[in-house]
Amino acid sequence: MAPSATGEPAPMHLPVISKASTISASVLHGPRDLRLERRSIEEPSIGELQIAVRTTGICGSDVSYYKKFANGDLCACMPLSLGHESSGTVVAIGPHVSGFSIGDRVALEVGIPCGQCGICRKGRYNLCKKMRFRSSAKSVPHFQGTLQERINHPAIWCHKLPDNISFDAAALLEPLSVAIHAVNRASPEPGSTALVLGAGAVGLLTAAMARQAGCATVTITDVDQGRVDFAVSKGFATHGYVVPRPLHSSSSSSSIASSTNSGISTPLDGVMTPGSTMSFQSQLDSAKMLAADMLSLTNAHKPLLVEDEDDGVDITFECTGKEICMHTALYATRPGGKVIMVGMGTPVQTLPMSVAHLREIDILGIFRYANTYATGIRVLCAQSVGAGFTLPNLDEMVTHRFKGLENAKGAFELASRTVDDDGNLVLKVVIEA
Amino acid sequence: MAPSATGEPAPMHLPVISKASTISASVLHGPRDLRLERRSIEEPSIGELQIAVRTTGICGSDVSYYKKFANGDLCACMPLSLGHESSGTVVAIGPHVSGFSIGDRVALEVGIPCGQCGICRKGRYNLCKKMRFRSSAKSVPHFQGTLQERINHPAIWCHKLPDNISFDAAALLEPLSVAIHAVNRASPEPGSTALVLGAGAVGLLTAAMARQAGCATVTITDVDQGRVDFAVSKGFATHGYVVPRPLHSSSSSSSIASSTNSGISTPLDGVMTPGSTMSFQSQLDSAKMLAADMLSLTNAHKPLLVEDEDDGVDITFECTGKEICMHTALYATRPGGKVIMVGMGTPVQTLPMSVAHLREIDILGIFRYANTYATGIRVLCAQSVGAGFTLPNLDEMVTHRFKGLENAKGAFELASRTVDDDGNLVLKVVIEA
Amino acid sequence: MAPSATGEPAPMHLPVISKASTISASVLHGPRDLRLERRSIEEPSIGELQIAVRTTGICGSDVSYYKKFANGDLCACMPLSLGHESSGTVVAIGPHVSGFSIGDRVALEVGIPCGQCGICRKGRYNLCKKMRFRSSAKSVPHFQGTLQERINHPAIWCHKLPDNISFDAAALLEPLSVAIHAVNRASPEPGSTALVLGAGAVGLLTAAMARQAGCATVTITDVDQGRVDFAVSKGFATHGYVVPRPLHSSSSSSSIASSTNSGISTPLDGVMTPGSTMSFQSQLDSAKMLAADMLSLTNAHKPLLVEDEDDGVDITFECTGKEICMHTALYATRPGGKVIMVGMGTPVQTLPMSVAHLREIDILGIFRYANTYATGIRVLCAQSVGAGFTLPNLDEMVTHRFKGLENAKGAFELASRTVDDDGNLVLKVVIEA
Amino acid sequence: MAPSATGEPAPMHLPVISKASTISASVLHGPRDLRLERRSIEEPSIGELQIAVRTTGICGSDVSYYKKFANGDLCACMPLSLGHESSGTVVAIGPHVSGFSIGDRVALEVGIPCGQCGICRKGRYNLCKKMRFRSSAKSVPHFQGTLQERINHPAIWCHKLPDNISFDAAALLEPLSVAIHAVNRASPEPGSTALVLGAGAVGLLTAAMARQAGCATVTITDVDQGRVDFAVSKGFATHGYVVPRPLHSSSSSSSIASSTNSGISTPLDGVMTPGSTMSFQSQLDSAKMLAADMLSLTNAHKPLLVEDEDDGVDITFECTGKEICMHTALYATRPGGKVIMVGMGTPVQTLPMSVAHLREIDILGIFRYANTYATGIRVLCAQSVGAGFTLPNLDEMVTHRFKGLENAKGAFELASRTVDDDGNLVLKVVIEA
Repeated sequence: MAPSATGEPAPMHLPVISKASTISASVLHGPRDLRLERRSIEEPSIGELQIAVRTTGICGSDVSYYKKFANGDLCACMPLSLGHESSGTVVAIGPHVSGFSIGDRVALEVGIPCGQCGICRKGRYNLCKKMRFRSSAKSVPHFQGTLQERINHPAIWCHKLPDNISFDAAALLEPLSVAIHAVNRASPEPGSTALVLGAGAVGLLTAAMARQAGCATVTITDVDQGRVDFAVSKGFATHGYVVPRPLHSSSSSSSIASSTNSGISTPLDGVMTPGSTMSFQSQLDSAKMLAADMLSLTNAHKPLLVEDEDDGVDITFECTGKEICMHTALYATRPGGKVIMVGMGTPVQTLPMSVAHLREIDILGIFRYANTYATGIRVLCAQSVGAGFTLPNLDEMVTHRFKGLENAKGAFELASRTVDDDGNLVLKVVIEA
Repeated sequence: MAPSATGEPAPMHLPVISKASTISASVLHGPRDLRLERRSIEEPSIGELQIAVRTTGICGSDVSYYKKFANGDLCACMPLSLGHESSGTVVAIGPHVSGFSIGDRVALEVGIPCGQCGICRKGRYNLCKKMRFRSSAKSVPHFQGTLQERINHPAIWCHKLPDNISFDAAALLEPLSVAIHAVNRASPEPGSTALVLGAGAVGLLTAAMARQAGCATVTITDVDQGRVDFAVSKGFATHGYVVPRPLHSSSSSSSIASSTNSGISTPLDGVMTPGSTMSFQSQLDSAKMLAADMLSLTNAHKPLLVEDEDDGVDITFECTGKEICMHTALYATRPGGKVIMVGMGTPVQTLPMSVAHLREIDILGIFRYANTYATGIRVLCAQSVGAGFTLPNLDEMVTHRFKGLENAKGAFELASRTVDDDGNLVLKVVIEA
Repeated sequence: MAPSATGEPAPMHLPVISKASTISASVLHGPRDLRLERRSIEEPSIGELQIAVRTTGICGSDVSYYKKFANGDLCACMPLSLGHESSGTVVAIGPHVSGFSIGDRVALEVGIPCGQCGICRKGRYNLCKKMRFRSSAKSVPHFQGTLQERINHPAIWCHKLPDNISFDAAALLEPLSVAIHAVNRASPEPGSTALVLGAGAVGLLTAAMARQAGCATVTITDVDQGRVDFAVSKGFATHGYVVPRPLHSSSSSSSIASSTNSGISTPLDGVMTPGSTMSFQSQLDSAKMLAADMLSLTNAHKPLLVEDEDDGVDITFECTGKEICMHTALYATRPGGKVIMVGMGTPVQTLPMSVAHLREIDILGIFRYANTYATGIRVLCAQSVGAGFTLPNLDEMVTHRFKGLENAKGAFELASRTVDDDGNLVLKVVIEA
Repeated sequence: MAPSATGEPAPMHLPVISKASTISASVLHGPRDLRLERRSIEEPSIGELQIAVRTTGICGSDVSYYKKFANGDLCACMPLSLGHESSGTVVAIGPHVSGFSIGDRVALEVGIPCGQCGICRKGRYNLCKKMRFRSSAKSVPHFQGTLQERINHPAIWCHKLPDNISFDAAALLEPLSVAIHAVNRASPEPGSTALVLGAGAVGLLTAAMARQAGCATVTITDVDQGRVDFAVSKGFATHGYVVPRPLHSSSSSSSIASSTNSGISTPLDGVMTPGSTMSFQSQLDSAKMLAADMLSLTNAHKPLLVEDEDDGVDITFECTGKEICMHTALYATRPGGKVIMVGMGTPVQTLPMSVAHLREIDILGIFRYANTYATGIRVLCAQSVGAGFTLPNLDEMVTHRFKGLENAKGAFELASRTVDDDGNLVLKVVIEA
């Protein structure tokens, strides 16, 4: 696994970094208007570290900003550096920081809550109204992302890495955090059954965490055969189900093409679209059949002996954000089970709510994550000592690497696609310093 | 409070009741085709009690069957006695029953689960697929309701009553069970804030139970001023909010008129209807404004000091089943809070799901109840010893009484209305033996 | 979170308060060596308020320091101002504070966690290893208590008060917080039954919060008839049980006399003492009989109808810290129930652990509280609007008031006793500015 | 629930089995007085299956009865067949049973609760007061164990097995159920750290289930090097710690010798014994040092980077029932963590309760299990499909097999030891039909 970065000299840290120095930064000025610029950076102030960014993974929201200068309702109103799945090395240490040394390798938790409001004090800091999140246009001035040579970041949001976690895997701790939070919210009992809709990066990681958390069977579904095969062959899920293409209307194939490696795949998107001529009731009927088919597939692999199994899975993780997948999720979950809304997507959805209501299926959403990095690091370490169950090697999820901020544009273009020019799967694109 | 029925002689129980005897029963044969008939009843068999029914409350589902011979998707396919909110007296005791005596006063829990499947063994027996529920057309042959002179019922589903719980209050243990289950699912911390949408019987009881469970403020809302006034003046809720009529379109007034005392009131129904010309987005905007208005009212009564309070209530109980009320519920609940779907209604709903998703508002439905009767009896007893907090006197919820099964028709007709001929509130109509 | 000393001038914002001013302080220099001294106080720094202390309640730990210059294992090693149950008025506002005005009335949360470690971020800040708590000798230099004319305190740990909460009640928010935390940990379902061992201040408040949180019956026990009568007559509990004196050995009466109004009463202390000749097994037998007697008393007040009630209460709050009371607690709790250890006392205890083990009775301890002040304020406000259930008026718990720091000595002496010279109950002694 | 005696004849469905037939049974008549006898068995009655027992594992309680005709406080008062870890084959089917066929392979859940009391209906049927448990002397007449050729057993407590679960593994579903229940009560978050005290059968299975449920590190400890090595090499735990022998007093070696393969090993038993001259305080100090040593060992294997890790593990499973191990458990667990009491042992224990109290370490006991068999079967099946994490192969835990009930005596004698005559580990001894 990755060697530690401890070879770097970086002596004399405070003297080396002058009061303000100059760095390169990749900055988005408008749709597809990505520029490499020079910026100045101050010394780290009280409680801060200065981090030389080593790896940044590209997320679906980054791609959205890149293409539209906006993400959902959020429109950027000033130049914005993207990137929030990041790892790096400590190059300077501000006053009143203890426990860190120059050269320490860290993963960055890039959302900074206020730490003082009621919800922060209760431990659900991801819901803090004053949260500032790097690369998001929500707070103004925007909190700049990690596609910069160096950044200053509060030490308490920098998580030290053991040697055996690579910078790539450390960058993936961010989407893994989403998966951890989703599984924490689901709180599966050991031996539970799970269904994951969508085999993008977040779907894959959620499936793997569901297995790690004790789910005995984890079925992953997608319209993309390659992703499903990847998920099962690499051990992210125990079973895979490819949503059959014949069902989908030809007109929606473009929406498939536009699905990205965002972690928010669209497994059922091609099947039927809201605008199609298919009536809503027949959409529901199709979702119900699809759910039954998924369940029967899984049941074929296990003894049809344990009672109640045909009623659905214990937990469904909906990682696509699509209304049609929420339909399938509701039909595929057993009475008393849970549907976790992971993938963000259609803000307004038309759902068969009585299916959840009358069967007491809890619908729980997640927004990013809280208190997940220590968990993620522990889980990845368990991986490397190699005993028993381990997460799949996250490095294998990184299908494409770009070297240097100057090549960010190529990275974003590729990240918009599901396969590259050679027909290979695009799962996670990273930019390395 | 209610005198106990211990004055009855009822000696010689097994001899008195011959092998099969004849009783009166109110039987529905079709829409509004309610007949008083004679039926035979066997002796109670192993594990059963024979109960002389004393009081049966009329529920919204009863009214629905009465008017349409159907309830939602469920169509009756044979004659059906209605009634499931019931109390009575033990008049015969089957073999292998211990702990009961002739003359014991009991509340009836009328849903009989299989007791053997996985979900029963885990304690969530309300979700048992083999559940048979009196007065419902779901199981075939239908499990007959309690509007009969006597019924045989498993002893373990008969709950003995202390003297100070009246037969009326005991009948109301059934809708109170719905309220208890709703509050158990919500699991409020002491000092929580709650909002209850709908001030019908179930809304009132849910509000009272939310208070009982430690919610510091419980705001109840309805379009009906009379119900809101009743709720606050009787102590069911701490605050009331009448949804302003001016907002509603005149064409929808008929739907108001058709709302019943079913426990599923329609507080916002008049405000805007799905079929109206109002755009969906403006419906959402109205719901958002309404939610803000409800919150500001409540906040005016309490110190505007405690942080985060303007973000919404901790828990919203949606007791109307209306889509528009779910909108309001989602907007009125704070990040990290819960929306409990209590009222059954529109099966397919179009909802701003991102409001729940991104703020991690859990959406939890309830289906009837499990393990609530002992709780309900304890809570009602706490009431009668009179120390400290008590539920409001449930007897006051019974606004109209009909004597004799032969008068059931009048009871159903009245239960379809929200005010009687004298302009008095119709909350709960009961039929007494 | 950490307010950084960024060197901003923040000049002259409060001309009234000079750069450093002089205040009176009550300072303990050794056992019973309490002195009134002059101290200097700086202006409030970043994030701080300056508070003129108005009321400080005396707690059992204060009395312990007063008498022994130590509390359990913690020995004071420098002069120490006592007091941590406090309320006051804002008289100066430091830089970077918003939301407060001069004259605001506040309750003080006097434990300051680091806000940055893992357990703080998860919301259990009471367990922070770096916690500094006013009037405790744990951190060195000691964090000085509130028996001072004015103190500077972080604004985020000052809780604004509505008009209808008195300074006395606000000071009692501190022990009420212990009670809230105890009840939050117990997480009772509505309609639960509870037993509270010990009717000192914390026992009373715990009983009241158990009722507020929905417990249908709350039985409180103590050896002191006066306290039990107070608890029941004022509505803190629904039932009272006086542990019979005849059981106790005469030699232990002194330990009774030395029990204080610390919130940690010793209800069963007189009954049997560890050093007595009574064998341990007969101690256990006595505890078992006592538990059975308590339960039968309670059962006599309610219908002996609800099954399983004779197996014990759902939740027992042990508020004395005595081993013998833990015995009673374990025997008095039903299978699947909970024992909450509230009162701190004997560090090493000999317990019939199999009683808990085999009946799955959870044993949960509490250490102070977290996230309770907003709850406490809401609960007290619910009280003042007067609708339905309310906590008893906390002002009535304040049995004795001393005016001026110069009279602190008298306050501590009285607080060491359970009755005053006139034979009146000593429950809570406060010192007012 | 109660199957009613409807009087159906159900004649001759299995001509092979006459109305009553004769079987062999291993029957204990007194200490070490085990006899092979002939008994008659009726046809299975309503709701029952007749099972030909194939494999029965020997548990520590069986060994206790074998040696003392008693288990703890429970004394047998009539002849008793032992055995409750069992699997077998369906050979006859009683009336009113569906879903089973002759020849079905099943695991037996041998505790039969009443199914009707409050605690059964809430899903915690293991706490049912009317529970009858095979091979236990608690209910009178005793409910006979499975060391019989055939038994009649309620069909709902027979769990069908898929082909890939061996009869041995199926018998081990019983102790695995204890482990599952322990882990369910602990409810670990993914990535938690766990410590298991005791590497007997139950300790091993608990460790494996903790891993299965997502604990990232699971350290197992014992005084027996062989057991620790087995645990780690087979993947039951991630780390092992052998409690050093030098600490123990020579006089206690006999207690070591008497420890059995009961699933309740005594890892620290040799270290210090209650009766030793070591003072209690130095016992506590030793336990504290031992805990610190265990933690440092584990920490050496993982990054010393994640904060708070030195404070202890998230969850400790105490599987020995020894007081000294409870001391270690309390010191080894982090603030806010949990200690699960799994191993039954010393009924009265002297514990440093303040360690749990002030650090809010929950102490949770378990009594057998509820709702675990379906989980166990799912987990074992996940094992056999071989994807990703799997439990270790339970068949490897069976170190010794005896064929035929006539050889039961030899099995019990061996099961009393920790190594066999060849010096091989004795973990689980089974008796096969």
